Amino acid sequence: MTNRYLDDLIVGDRFISGGLTLTEAEIIDFAFRYDPQPFHLDVNAAAESPYGGLIASGFQSIALCFRLFIQSGIFKESSIGSPGLDEVRWLAPVRPGDTLHSEVEVLEVRPSTSKPDRGIARLRYAAVNQRGETVLSFIGNNMLKRRPG
Amino acid sequence: MTNRYLDDLIVGDRFISGGLTLTEAEIIDFAFRYDPQPFHLDVNAAAESPYGGLIASGFQSIALCFRLFIQSGIFKESSIGSPGLDEVRWLAPVRPGDTLHSEVEVLEVRPSTSKPDRGIARLRYAAVNQRGETVLSFIGNNMLKRRPG
Repeated sequence: MTNRYLDDLIVGDRFISGGLTLTEAEIIDFAFRYDPQPFHLDVNAAAESPYGGLIASGFQSIALCFRLFIQSGIFKESSIGSPGLDEVRWLAPVRPGDTLHSEVEVLEVRPSTSKPDRGIARLRYAAVNQRGETVLSFIGNNMLKRRPG
Repeated sequence: MTNRYLDDLIVGDRFISGGLTLTEAEIIDFAFRYDPQPFHLDVNAAAESPYGGLIASGFQSIALCFRLFIQSGIFKESSIGSPGLDEVRWLAPVRPGDTLHSEVEVLEVRPSTSKPDRGIARLRYAAVNQRGETVLSFIGNNMLKRRPG
């Protein structure tokens, strides 16, 4: 995907990423470092939990959703970080073997009033599984450069 | 720390975690998997970025903030997941060698009206560095079991 600057985005634009199959190994590895709760780490304890089996950490699933989008190269020349996220919602469990892709929609494009070289794109991110279920969503505030010149 | 059920939390309770020094290796490893942007991955490109050097992915810093708190064991018997986060704010860069700890405050305790065995604790999470600067904050909605019996 070619790079987009802030000025190239239009409210309502939608982007669909490629997919990734999340393995049991990656779920347990992430949880061991970043979210060591039994239903993310231990298949036996997870089977006894309300989820009935191992599920991915929500922190892993939001990071994956972002990564699947950003690896497209869409903001390769324009991204200069983010002030934050809003309304992170984990809507359905992510289980070993699930294949996720990201769907991203432009909600708002707001040039900075104080810094003329940049602005904020407010984007709705969703991760969708192989059954078409949205497993999570969040609003990301991406700080992007304006088109040079 | 001993386990707390929903009923054990009181609005205004505060918890302080132990610390973790975030190395360059961990920053690059995380970014390579989950947030492959030049200012998280490439020390030379990062030096030319607005940050003037490598910074940690915000997805890594929020996951670390949660992990430092949850590893205390405070919700070992009571945590059954989370419906989401609100108001994630990245307030200052996290750089290689920074030492972070978590500070968590109870904002609200809300028993479920439909499921009498559980409820939501709304907690404000902050990650604080070695200079006492809050580098990020978010509100976590932790679903917790009520005390049995």
